[in-house]
Parts: sequence; structure tokens; C-alpha cells
Amino acid sequence: MPAISLDQEKLTDDQLKTLDDMWRRCVRRIILSTTLAGSGHPGGSMSSLHLLLMLYSTLRHRPHDPGWTERDRLIVSMGHISPGVYAVLCEFGYIAEDAMLLEFRRAGSSFAGHVETCVPGVEWNTGNLGQGLSAATGMALALRLRQRDARVAALMGDGEQQKGQVSEARRFAWKYKLSNLLGIVDRNRLQIGGDTQTVMPQRIRDEYAASGWNVISVEDGHDYREIFDALRRVHRRDVPDPARPSVIVARTVMGKGISFMENNAHYHGCALTEDEAERAFAELGMENALASFQEKRRHHRLFQSAYCPAIPYPEIHEGSPREYGADVRIDNRSAYGAALEDLARLNNTGDTPKILGFSCDLEGSVKMKGFHKVSPDAFFEAGIQEHHTATVSGAVSREGFAVFFSTFGVFGVSEVYNQHRLNDINGSQLKLVCTHLGLDVGEDGQTHQCIDYIGLLQNLYHFSIFIPADPNQTDRIVRHAAQHPGNCFVGMGRSKTPVLTDRDGVPLYGGDYRFRPGRADWVRRGSDGAILAYGPMVAIALEAQRLLEEEDGLKVAVVNCASIKPLDEDAVIEAAGTGLILTVEDHHVETGLGARVAGVLADRAVSCRLVRLGVKHYGHSGAPRELYRMEGLDAPAILDAFRKAHAAVRSGK
Amino acid sequence: MPAISLDQEKLTDDQLKTLDDMWRRCVRRIILSTTLAGSGHPGGSMSSLHLLLMLYSTLRHRPHDPGWTERDRLIVSMGHISPGVYAVLCEFGYIAEDAMLLEFRRAGSSFAGHVETCVPGVEWNTGNLGQGLSAATGMALALRLRQRDARVAALMGDGEQQKGQVSEARRFAWKYKLSNLLGIVDRNRLQIGGDTQTVMPQRIRDEYAASGWNVISVEDGHDYREIFDALRRVHRRDVPDPARPSVIVARTVMGKGISFMENNAHYHGCALTEDEAERAFAELGMENALASFQEKRRHHRLFQSAYCPAIPYPEIHEGSPREYGADVRIDNRSAYGAALEDLARLNNTGDTPKILGFSCDLEGSVKMKGFHKVSPDAFFEAGIQEHHTATVSGAVSREGFAVFFSTFGVFGVSEVYNQHRLNDINGSQLKLVCTHLGLDVGEDGQTHQCIDYIGLLQNLYHFSIFIPADPNQTDRIVRHAAQHPGNCFVGMGRSKTPVLTDRDGVPLYGGDYRFRPGRADWVRRGSDGAILAYGPMVAIALEAQRLLEEEDGLKVAVVNCASIKPLDEDAVIEAAGTGLILTVEDHHVETGLGARVAGVLADRAVSCRLVRLGVKHYGHSGAPRELYRMEGLDAPAILDAFRKAHAAVRSGK
Repeated sequence: MPAISLDQEKLTDDQLKTLDDMWRRCVRRIILSTTLAGSGHPGGSMSSLHLLLMLYSTLRHRPHDPGWTERDRLIVSMGHISPGVYAVLCEFGYIAEDAMLLEFRRAGSSFAGHVETCVPGVEWNTGNLGQGLSAATGMALALRLRQRDARVAALMGDGEQQKGQVSEARRFAWKYKLSNLLGIVDRNRLQIGGDTQTVMPQRIRDEYAASGWNVISVEDGHDYREIFDALRRVHRRDVPDPARPSVIVARTVMGKGISFMENNAHYHGCALTEDEAERAFAELGMENALASFQEKRRHHRLFQSAYCPAIPYPEIHEGSPREYGADVRIDNRSAYGAALEDLARLNNTGDTPKILGFSCDLEGSVKMKGFHKVSPDAFFEAGIQEHHTATVSGAVSREGFAVFFSTFGVFGVSEVYNQHRLNDINGSQLKLVCTHLGLDVGEDGQTHQCIDYIGLLQNLYHFSIFIPADPNQTDRIVRHAAQHPGNCFVGMGRSKTPVLTDRDGVPLYGGDYRFRPGRADWVRRGSDGAILAYGPMVAIALEAQRLLEEEDGLKVAVVNCASIKPLDEDAVIEAAGTGLILTVEDHHVETGLGARVAGVLADRAVSCRLVRLGVKHYGHSGAPRELYRMEGLDAPAILDAFRKAHAAVRSGK
Repeated sequence: MPAISLDQEKLTDDQLKTLDDMWRRCVRRIILSTTLAGSGHPGGSMSSLHLLLMLYSTLRHRPHDPGWTERDRLIVSMGHISPGVYAVLCEFGYIAEDAMLLEFRRAGSSFAGHVETCVPGVEWNTGNLGQGLSAATGMALALRLRQRDARVAALMGDGEQQKGQVSEARRFAWKYKLSNLLGIVDRNRLQIGGDTQTVMPQRIRDEYAASGWNVISVEDGHDYREIFDALRRVHRRDVPDPARPSVIVARTVMGKGISFMENNAHYHGCALTEDEAERAFAELGMENALASFQEKRRHHRLFQSAYCPAIPYPEIHEGSPREYGADVRIDNRSAYGAALEDLARLNNTGDTPKILGFSCDLEGSVKMKGFHKVSPDAFFEAGIQEHHTATVSGAVSREGFAVFFSTFGVFGVSEVYNQHRLNDINGSQLKLVCTHLGLDVGEDGQTHQCIDYIGLLQNLYHFSIFIPADPNQTDRIVRHAAQHPGNCFVGMGRSKTPVLTDRDGVPLYGGDYRFRPGRADWVRRGSDGAILAYGPMVAIALEAQRLLEEEDGLKVAVVNCASIKPLDEDAVIEAAGTGLILTVEDHHVETGLGARVAGVLADRAVSCRLVRLGVKHYGHSGAPRELYRMEGLDAPAILDAFRKAHAAVRSGK
């Protein structure tokens, strides 16, 4: 299937000639596309071009069937070399040259400044450096789990080797013996700021070797024969330890092929001017077609449609929910762990598991031990390497698995927000289940108290946010999350949570209850005002509601907003009908539910008194109940706030 | 000054005896404090105890004057070993034993679960692993800049070496030849998940060596003589390259000293039970004082007051503002660069610069070249290592410098949010100036478009958020930021921005204008409604306002909310007086100014129609004006939205 077999001993003259011809056409496309757009990254594109051509020539792939499940994958981590990638994809028949040249960097087209998967042949949207190796690791893991013998290659820049996440990815690939993973570093020794060793000294080969990788040097990354030999060595397992991943570090020249561009960092991120392009084409002995393409580009309006293959998701059986009786006292974490274990038992029965689990040295605290025990091959302990873990779990989640990544909220959300963002852009379907949210973390103190998870994750367009209020609801939400595609955050605190019941003492989230995104639950009805809460605050709100009824004779509604995103806007409006809404949350008061409720009221032009209770300072280190008291989030404080607001509403103030 | 001089050839018997006695008292405190609190981390505390004692004995410091400017610093990166740190601080007279034992992990006390600077002798709040070396690097840099010969030691866990940020910090320290920086790794080979090499294989010494550090092995990290020899080698510059930083990797035993705790990961994060404590004290041949302390703790209410030394900030002369005439067209980035260059010229005149600059391989794009040229010794190019850079610049900013860290918004905010969060907790005073915000990034596409900077930074309690609307305001805001302590974000897009003028064509932000946080500017007055905007959207809002006046005869106010945090709530209320507020922002529509305005209206119980325009999807790659059009953020779309809302308000819908 590949154009050139790595079983050959060496490249034939014909193949070399063909590669040379391809190279010339590709350089032309790189120069044309960037100069036409007036921006882009020609220098790195040309530095990587021989590597790209050799990779696409030797990898197994089917341009007419870009999603072929047995294909080898190429992830281009430095997404800014998009002109080079598109140029080569033209060569292999993935895309039409005209589309690339006329649409590059134009709003609404697929040919973005950084590679995106809407172009067939692109496997992962990149652009934020240092994440590509993690994504490739995820794909290599997925192929391994499916017993496919396809390989994954990650082409990386040398500048981005400075990113810490790369070191995390290296260790993970070493630990899991991902011999089907190949890194290729385009070592042109130039980054935007100039010489890489001046900007930030780094011994790239030593670092890979220290992380247990096989390291192969290519002295001239523009010599097809040398690149071929290196790829062939990996293919033939002619490396120190074939059970480990390998990296090829190829010495290259930025802007290779055009004299005045070579080794000139200026062309990292600058297109050639028209005059420079003229000179470049003259050097290449090519006709300068710039003017005619400029004219065509001006009139080109109907863009090539985006390539949007369906992202697979497994069929998951949810099993029978666990029911926790009214007298049970456990933490939601344990309910999560039990549900996940059930799901594993029920679904991970074939040769390939359907549900995968990732943790960062907190397996016990996040209650994944049961899952690990039932599905040892589907559990991945990724160490204290949250950035890599967020990306690798996100990448695997796009490969037809239901993937759960669990750690504390601070590490799973605040620390790795941008990794989730890039996952979200890539259409990942991650189930991010974080524990130890809020002041409820208690004694571990402010550095560990995640009070911004809504504030952060709400910025990600494709993430749902669910916060169960008790163990029963946790069980249902976890089963729901496992069954449904898409990114989803499920959050919980650390402490034990009472099982919520109706006025008759019957568990609210047992029996026929089914969790539905976008629907809030009226835990208590009342017309004197409504308290909107979620997570551990619902039980505390109920206590305040009881006191208000007993002491003041007030009928106060309590609404559990477990589905924060999507939010039940109709429930908010209905609550506003009481004339008073009190939001209560173990979360930054300005960026959580209260802010969302204010937004809904404003958008719908509904008038209602809103009082927002939440966290107003970084927390202390102490017992959660003490911290809640200090922040005005215990039942007496809620009671007090409600009373004051209710009196103000009644008096028309 | 140090209790033990590193100029001695070896430890005396008396010193060894003293250290042994100290160790016994400290172990007792570790066990007592954790068992009394019922939680905490005794295992690692005991693993590090000999190292801590030897470090505090040999470092120069003054317990009666914790802020002594000539002191050596010890940063404890794995903040969870707080019982060990507090125990040793008792020994050296920083704190009283009773305070530690009776207050550990109690809400409102200084003795938090992870070390905090409110305890004298603690140099940096830690808890989120992998950041301590970066913070230490910042302090080493500060000492170097002040020509002080004090040293900085960073005590780290071995598990946290897995964090990618550590690799970034290593390279930075190598590049800047921070020979006054010493790393010490407590290599107990256990992390929560068990054996470190099983959880995540890592060759720690090889990694430090690959990053240019001098590596010293200590085979027994509980042998004072061996630790002393290693420290003495560094002190005497008896290392392969004395111009470089050094690391001591010390083999230790978790739970060292109590038989049943040794090498048992369970005691990483679990206090001993009362029975276990009883056994431990028996082993040590000590009286078990648990019961009497339990009793005392029950009655102890008056906590030791927090140690809160003033954080220094330099006096900065703002100079004369640059004035950009009405016909000038430059980008705000360039105005930032020019102002920063002016500030450097005016303030960085002595032996020690007052203003420092950090960039991550984007010096040119963020316009720091002028600053770099004027103050070459005050400029730090940190490579593509944003996590480290956020922390190191934050740490330096607490040392009496005005520190500017600039990169693109995605890399300076979204990628490193949690680093800023830990900085914020530590009282950093960073000026985070990010460029390339919003869809205004244009062709670089969705991975580079930072549309969440308000949504993210609003979660940090001590950060101000300022977004200038034109080059004149940029100049004033940058000078303001330089002069004032505290964390501050200044954001700007990529494109050129017209100079804003009043109706007479006079620049709005020239002349006598002074920027004031928390004050919005009425760029136009009007009673038919108000458009609230910031940054590049103000000019576009003005265009819509002009059209509304010309075409519809409507008098529409335009308010520039350059100070997003603190927000001018009175201006919002005044705008609400028109009956209609339209917010317009190149930012996620749910998490920016519009959400804040909705919150203000709700909190103040003010009724006003609010329409929020903003970004509702990840952006495309194309010209900013095209992207604004696609997202309904150009003048015609604003006009249209205003018209519809105005008609609805008028008709009472």
C-alpha cells in the first residue's frame, strides 16, 4: 500500500527522482499559498518537507479513504507548518491543489493557518505546541488496545521540545512500551527567537535517551536516503530495544531549498513578498504563477466542504443503578467508583475494552481501584503528569472508547485547562470526573481547593458540566456519562454526602429517576422564594429550607441544578416566579451558577431579586464545615441571607 | 550565622549529637501534629527530615528576622511535608511548638496542610507539585540581580519530578547559569501510587545531567555526614562546572525512623491512628503526650497571628505619556512596547534594574524588543516554556521588581492559568501583558484565539483585568500598571486600532487623561440605550453608534469598560438608566463583560434590558474583519442587534 516499502533495502533512482519532483511541486505550493495569503509559515514547512514526503511515502494510508481503520497515523505537532502538510496532501491526492492555494487562511475554509482535521489526512488539530506527542501516544495506545499493527508517527519541531509536556509524554510512552510510536524531530535549530541553543539550551537526544527511547540521528534531514534508512531501521526493529518507542532526530535547514530563506528565522512566520517569491521561483527555474492565482483567489468563493467523519463511540450498557438508602452515608467519590466498576464489569468483556480509565497518582482517592481491578488492561496510571494525561486521554477518547480521566479538580481542570480546550476543538469525548472540588477539600487548603471548575470549563463550547448532589445521583450521572458521546465533566467533593430524600424520607434519586442533562430538580416546592444549589450545597440548602419553614413559616423551594451546562433555563425562570432566587455554591461566587442565573434572567428580561452566595476568598486549611461557616455557606448563613432578601423583597426595597 | 559552617571539614560529634536530638524532637512533632489533626503527611515529612535539618543548619538565615534580605532561601516544593517543615521551624525558633501542635490543619490558623508563607520561615506557598523549582529559580534570579551572594535551595519530592514544568525550570536555570541555585531531591522512591519506577519510570539524575546541571548523589539521605559532604561540595564549588546549578539526589526512606512506617506508601498521606502513635512513641522511647495535647487542642481557640510581611514594590517613574494623534494607525502592542521601552529608559538606570521583562519566544510579536535593547540584563527569554515562565516571573515579582511577562493570550493565560493561581495565592505582583487576544488573531485560527481571558482570570481574587481600547489608552494603562503593586492583566489584540476621539476629533486618551481602575469612560453620551464594550470593540461600537444616529436618529451611549476588574458598577447602573444595555466583546459571550454586567444588574436589583453579543463558537482562520462578521460582531450586526432590542423595549416586549 505505501508508495515506498520499508522492506526495500534502499531507495531506487526512480523513487528518488519521483521524490525530487514531488518536492519541487510542494515547495511551489508552500510559497504560493503563503504569499497569496500574505501570512503563514514557509520556513518550517520547507525544513520539514523532505521528512513529510518520506513519511507519507512509507506510511500505510489510503487517500481515498482517510478514515481507514488500519492506516498508520501521522500527527504534525507543529501545526504552523500547514502549508507543507497541505502541499504534501495534494501530492498524495487527499486534496486538490486549487483548493489549497485559493482557500489557505481564508475565513470559512478548511485550510487553516494551523492544521485542522477538517482537511482529510490531518489526524489532530494542533497549533499550541508541545501537545502533539501526547495525542500521538493516545492513538498508539488505541491501536495497541485494538491489536492493530498500524504505527503512529509524531512529527515535531525542535523548539517545542522545550515544552514540559513533551517530557511527560516521553515517560508515558516508555512506561507503556509503545513500540508502535515513532517521534521525528525536525532539528533545524531555529525558533522564532533565533538559534534554539541560544534561546533555550537543550540536549534533545539525551533527553529522549534518558526517557528510555531509542534515539536515531539523521545527519541530513533533506537526504531521502538517510531518512529512509532511519525509518527502515525502526521498521526492521533494528534499534537498541525494539519494545520501546523510537525517535528520529533529523538535522535540517529552515527554509531549505531557497538560498535566501535558508537558516533565516525571519521566514519562520513570514510569507515571502511578491518580489521575494519571484526570486524564489527564478531560483527553482519555475514559472511564477502568483498573478494568475491572485486573480483566481479574488473570485474564489465556494470553498471545499470540510471533512467531518463521524467520531465513533462505543455502545455502553449502563446496567442496573446502585441504590443507596436514606440512612447510607458515603461520599460521591465512592458512588462514582462503584458505578465505574459496574460499568467495567458489564462492558469490558471482549478482547478490547470499551471503557478506559486514566489517573494521575490518585487512583485510591478518586476511587478507581475497583475499575482497575476489574479491567487491569484498561487502566492507565499516568503519574504526576496531568498535562500529558489530559491530552492522551482526550486523544484516545476520539478512537471509539469511553474514557474516564479522574484526579482532583485542581489538577484535572485548573492545571490543564488548555489541554482540554485543544481536546474540545478536536472533538474529544472525554469523561472528566474530578473529585475534591471546592472548600470541601478541607485541610489540604487553598492550593488544593478547586473553586473555579465552572468558571473555567464553561469556556469550552462542547463540554457538559454535571455536579451530582448525592451518591444516588452520582451513580445515575456516571452511567449516563458513560453512555453518551461528547465531552463531559462530572464533579464532586471529598466528604460524605447525605442521601437526599423527599418529605417522606424516600430517596430522591433512586427508583425510576433518570438523569437528564438540562433539567433541574425541584427537591422542594415553595412560593416564598427559591434556593438554587448543586453538589454538597443541596443538602445544606435543604437544612436552611427546613429552618425557614419551621422558624419563619416560609415555603421555600429548593432546586438542585446538577446539570450546570446545559442549564435548565426554564427552571430558573420558574424559580424567578417566586420573586426571589438565592444561589448557593461551593465555588467562586462570581463565576459559577449565580453568574449563569444572572445571565439567564438578563437574557430573558425577567425581573427577580437574585442573591448569590459563594466563595469570596481563597480558602483556609481546616474542616469543611468550618470553612463553610467562615464563608457564609452553612445553613444558618443561608437562612440569614434568605431572610434578609425576603424582607427586602416584601418591603419593595 | 548558620549553626553549622560548610567551611568545616566535617561534622563534629557534638553537632551530630545535636542533630540527633533535634531529629527526635521533630519526629515527635510530626507524629503528634498529624495524629492530633487526624490527617496530614507524616511519611514524606520523615523521609525529608534529615535533609531539612541539615539545610536549616547550614543555610544563612535569622529566625528573629525572617525577612532578612541577605538570607539564604529554602523553598519546599512538596508542600505536603508541612509537619516536617513546621517541626524544624520550631527547632530553629521561628515558631512555638504549642502553636504548631494545637493549630495544625485548623481553619483560621497559619499551620495549613501545605506550607504557606504566613508561617515565618516559609518562602513560598506550595501544594500543587512541580512548581517549587521554578519559584526558587525566580528567587535565585532576584538575588543575582541584586548582587547578593545568598543561595536558594529547592527541596523537592521525587514523584513531582514527573511534572513537565520541572524540566522547563531546569533548562532555564542552566541557560542563566544560576549557580546560586541548589536542588535537593528527596528520592524515597515512593509516591501515593507506590514505587515511583512502577508508577512512572524516570531517570532523575540523567535528566538533570541532560539539562546541564551538576549532579551529586547522596546514597543515604539520612546520614548527616553524607548530606553535609554534598552540601559542602556545592559550597566549595567542587562540582564539574561551578557556573551551573547543582542538584543533590538523596536516597531516602519514606517514614524513616519508625519501623512500621518505613517504605510504606500508606503513610504518605495518612496520619497515624492513636494506637499507631502509641507504638511509634514506644519505639522512640518517648512518653506519649497525645492525650494531653488532645485536651489542650480542644480548648485552644486563640490562634497565632499570621506572619504578613509587606511585599516590596519599587518606585517607578511613569515618565511622559506618548501621544498618538487622531490620524495614527498602530496596534496596541506597539504602544505597549514603546511605553515599556520608555519605562526601562527612565527606571532601569542603576546597578539593579527595577523593571524586568520575560517572554516566551515571542519577543518580536509582543513588542518587547525595545525593552530588551534598553535593558538587556533585565530581559529574560524563557523559551517555549510558559508554565515555568509564569511561575518564575511571578516569584521574581515578589522580590521588589516590577515584572512584565508577555506572550500571546492563549499561552500566557489559558495554558498557565494554574501557575497564575498559585502566584496569586503567593501575593505575586506580576504584570501579565498578553497580546493576540480574541478572534483578532485572525489567520492563526482557533488554537491561537484566546477568547476566555476574562472567564479565566476573573477566578483569581487578586488580579486586575485591564483591556485598553486604543494606543493612547494602552500607553497610559501600561504606565499605570508599572507603577502599582499587585497582579494585573493587560490585554490587547493583534491588529491596528484607530485612535479614539471625541466628537470633535480630539483623541480621547491624550492630554490630561489618567487611567483609573474601576472607572469606565463615556465615550459617547445618549439616552436611547448604551453599548458597553472594551478593546477593539469600542471602535466598532462607535461605528454602530454613528450609524444608529444617522439612520435611526437614536442617541446611543458608548461606554469603554477598559477596567474589566474592578468593573465600574456605577457606570453599569447609569447605563441601565437608558433602559437598554448592549454588551459587545471579542470574547466568549457567556464568560466576559456581558456576564459581569448581568451580575451587577442582578446584585443591585436593577431592571434593564440586556443583550449580550460575543463569541459563540471556536473561531475560524481568516481575516479578523471576516471573523467578526461571521460572529455578528461587526458594526452592521451591532446596529441590527441594537435596533431589534430597542424596538422590543419600546414595545414593552
